[in-house]
Formats: sequence, C-alpha cells, structure tokens
Amino acid sequence: MNVFIIGTGLIGGSFAIDIKAAFNEALIYGIDQNEENLNKALALGVIDNKASLKGLKDATIVIIAIPVDATVTIISEVLDVVSDDCLVFDVGSTKQKLCEVVSNHHKRRNYLAAHPIAGTEFSGPEAAVANLYRGKTNIVCEVEKTAFKLQEKGMEIFSRLGMRIRYMDPVSHDKHIAYVSHLSHISSFMLGKTVIEKEKNERDIFDMAGSGFASTVRLAKSSPAMWAPIFKHNKENVIETLQEYITNLTQFKELMEKDDFDEIYKEMESTNHIKSILKGIN
Amino acid sequence: MNVFIIGTGLIGGSFAIDIKAAFNEALIYGIDQNEENLNKALALGVIDNKASLKGLKDATIVIIAIPVDATVTIISEVLDVVSDDCLVFDVGSTKQKLCEVVSNHHKRRNYLAAHPIAGTEFSGPEAAVANLYRGKTNIVCEVEKTAFKLQEKGMEIFSRLGMRIRYMDPVSHDKHIAYVSHLSHISSFMLGKTVIEKEKNERDIFDMAGSGFASTVRLAKSSPAMWAPIFKHNKENVIETLQEYITNLTQFKELMEKDDFDEIYKEMESTNHIKSILKGIN
Repeated sequence: MNVFIIGTGLIGGSFAIDIKAAFNEALIYGIDQNEENLNKALALGVIDNKASLKGLKDATIVIIAIPVDATVTIISEVLDVVSDDCLVFDVGSTKQKLCEVVSNHHKRRNYLAAHPIAGTEFSGPEAAVANLYRGKTNIVCEVEKTAFKLQEKGMEIFSRLGMRIRYMDPVSHDKHIAYVSHLSHISSFMLGKTVIEKEKNERDIFDMAGSGFASTVRLAKSSPAMWAPIFKHNKENVIETLQEYITNLTQFKELMEKDDFDEIYKEMESTNHIKSILKGIN
Repeated sequence: MNVFIIGTGLIGGSFAIDIKAAFNEALIYGIDQNEENLNKALALGVIDNKASLKGLKDATIVIIAIPVDATVTIISEVLDVVSDDCLVFDVGSTKQKLCEVVSNHHKRRNYLAAHPIAGTEFSGPEAAVANLYRGKTNIVCEVEKTAFKLQEKGMEIFSRLGMRIRYMDPVSHDKHIAYVSHLSHISSFMLGKTVIEKEKNERDIFDMAGSGFASTVRLAKSSPAMWAPIFKHNKENVIETLQEYITNLTQFKELMEKDDFDEIYKEMESTNHIKSILKGIN
C-alpha cells in the first residue's frame, strides 16, 4: 500500500504517522515543495521516502494536505497521473471551489472531498502527532461522486484512525464551517492584533495576561499560508459571519454606553448556554 | 490564624484550600449570602465553619472574593468590624473604584488591593481547586497605603501559595487589564452569541466545531454575575478596547471585500508574533 502525502506538515504528517501505525503494509511517500520540510519529515520518520508528482502513478492512496488554493491548482494534475484504482482525497477547510474544479474531470470518481475537523495552532512536520484524528469528525462531501470501492478504501482509513464521518454537500459545509471555525480564527487574530498594537511595552503588560487571554488568542498562532487561502475561498460566507460578529460587538458596546448592564447580564447568561454545546468537543 | 473568606466560590474557595494546606494553624471561616453555596463549601471541606460579618472581629485575615460591585458595597462595613491587626484583601478584577471608596476610611491601612491573575471559566465552591495560584501573577495596587506589618502578612500568604507579585497603580491596572483580560471575555461571549444565533440546529452543526472553536469561546462560559459588574466598573477602558477591536475587525472585513489577501496574509503574519508573547503564559 503506497501512500503519498502531498504536504508533509501538521495535517499530512499526522495522517502519515497514524496510517503507518494502523496499516503494517503501508509505505509512506512524502511530496513537499518545501525541501527543508520534506527532509525534516524524513529525518523525523514521519515519511519513509521522498517522492515527486511523477511517482503518483504507483500510488494506492494520495492525501493532499496543502493550502486550499494550492490544492485547487494541483488537483487535476494529480488525478491525471494516478491509476484507476487510486483514491485521492484532500483535507482542506473549504470544499465548494474544489468540488467545482474537479466536477468535470474524467477521473472525478477517484477523488473524495474530505475535511477532518482536527488540528492544532502549530504547523510543519515537527507539529505532526499520533492520534490527532481519533474521535474527531470528518466531513465528507459529494460522496456519491466517488467510486464505491474507493469510498470503501477511504472509510477503512478514516475508521482505523478513529474518525466519525458526516456527509454534507459542499455549499452547506462552507457556510457552516465559516461560523464554527473560520470566524474563530479571525476573532482570535484581531484580538491578538488589538492587544499587541496597544501594549507596546509587552514584557511588562503580558505578565498581566492569564490563561483566559491565552486561550482566546491561541488561534492567532495559526499559519497565514494556510489561512489566507481559506478566507479567500470562503469569502462570501466569512464576510457574512464577520459582519454579524461586528454587529453583536457593536450592540454590546452600545449597551455599555447607555449603562444597560442588566441587558449585558442577560446577553451573557443566554450565551452561557454554550457550555452544554461545548461538552461534546474536546 | 482565623481566615475569613467572603464569597466561597471558585476564587475564594481556591484560596481556602491552599491556605489550609500551607498554614497548619489556619481555620477557615466562610461567609456567603448564597446559603446553598456556603453549605456546599462546608460539605466539600473547602471551609471549616460557616460565619457571618459580625464574626469578622475575630479575623486574622479577611479575603473578599465576590463580584466587584458587591465588594465596593461591603468593604467599609468589613473594615469597620475588623481588629487593628487584621489584613483585609480583595481579589477583584478592577481596582480603581475600590481604591477610591476606601481611600478615606480610617482603617485604610488594614486593606490591601490585590488581583491574582488566575481562574477558570467555572464558578461556585465545587469549582475551587488546589494550586490555582501557583506560578500566577498577583497584581498589588497602592501597596504603600497598607500597614507594613499587614503587607508582610499578605506577602507571606501570596508567597506560600506560589504567586509572583507585581506592583501597579490602580488606574494603570484597570487600563491594561481591559486589554489582556476584559476584552477577551467580550470577544468570546459575542463569538458564542453569533454562532448560537445562526446555528439553530445545534446538534448537527456543532459536530463540525473543533478544539479551535472550543478554545476561542471558552470564556463565554464565565459567570455573568461576576462579569457584568467588572464591565460596569471598567466601563471607559473596556469601551475603548472594544472600539479598537471592532475597528480592526472592520478593517479585516474591508480587506476581504476588496480581495486584498496579500495584506490579510501580512496582518496574520505580524500577529503570529503573539506566539513568543504567550510562551510565558500557561
């Protein structure tokens, strides 16, 4: 079983580690345009061999784990090279553009659109960890457009890695993920920006920051190379969520300005309800 | 050593637990207007005895750990009752109003204004935990206004509990804490609100939420009873930070609207710098 991982960073590398552990017969090939990362992945034992796109003709499985704009650029070439029995899946955070791009490819049936809801704020092969996907949701889009035998192959991997599958159309995926993932990243980046801008004398002031601040700005450590393309691909949905967020913040500020702290209390109390919603998320 | 804790919730209860562990001779008395919480604190062993404000005349130490508006209301009465050798300190998240209120009290020298930067998003005596304060920063305001022997008493407690002390004037405290703590809470509450409002069909959609979302909205679980008074007390500073945050979010949205994803990349890249700042915070 020849598994080719395109993009040997946090996400691709973590797939490599788990697949090697779950499938004795798996040989992991890494492809990365960043030669330094590729060498690191090899040195760390995340991959068994370095490879190039030409090598994909011998692939059993191809996992594309690079920024979403790069995936859109490369996907047709990948499908052109692979054999009829090869499953290609990507793990990107937006699905609509990608599904559009492959829709008329003659090997559309070799492709499965996936989005495992897993990750950390770190990046690169050294950030790859075992069991990143265990217990996590994997959203699969347009499953009916993938060859049945290759669906089975994908599900076997997802299942051995401990993922729960949810099926969704790509338009709904991109709309909802804007709320529960993309908006969080912007809120966190802009919180970090606001505080850094104001507090020039960092060493002193950040002594005052506690675990609450650290938790809220954690996502501001995320990779711009990964996230700028996500915002670009999901522009309309993200702008909509962002506008709603800004409206809610502005309304909160207005309540403060008119000293309506009873209403502020009620707003917070009703949002406390998030407790029960979050219980299922680790 | 009679330690009276006014407010036997997360913060007061955690002080009780650590002081009992650090001082063999400590007897912990709990005061709480919520009789149910007080009974819980007793049943959990967080406090040794229930008490009332009248009992404070026998106190060696009084710790006030209730919402900041309640502290402002009660502080003069507490100082009136305690003996000349008793140290009274509070642990509230705003310091300016409180320092103003006590400034002319004839027992001002018995009071120490403190703010340990520690806590979790949970509340009540069952949320109290050991070692909450270990390694955390404790901001002490107007230390020169507290009797020297009582300062020493306070520092002995803070030191045995493992806290680092930072001295600051109350005006600066309230200004900076708005950025590194109060704003995070609003950003988190409004993020929770935005997503809950939009995603009525929660059970389905929150399957899609990952640890990033959970981390960013964690503070939206915080107690409104604690936080509405904090926002009220620190109104001017919080409104200022909130306006800057809204301006940054609006600018981000405008960059998206004009497809300037290069600039968005740069914004995120420069905010990534938060990594090194956060290293010191656990």
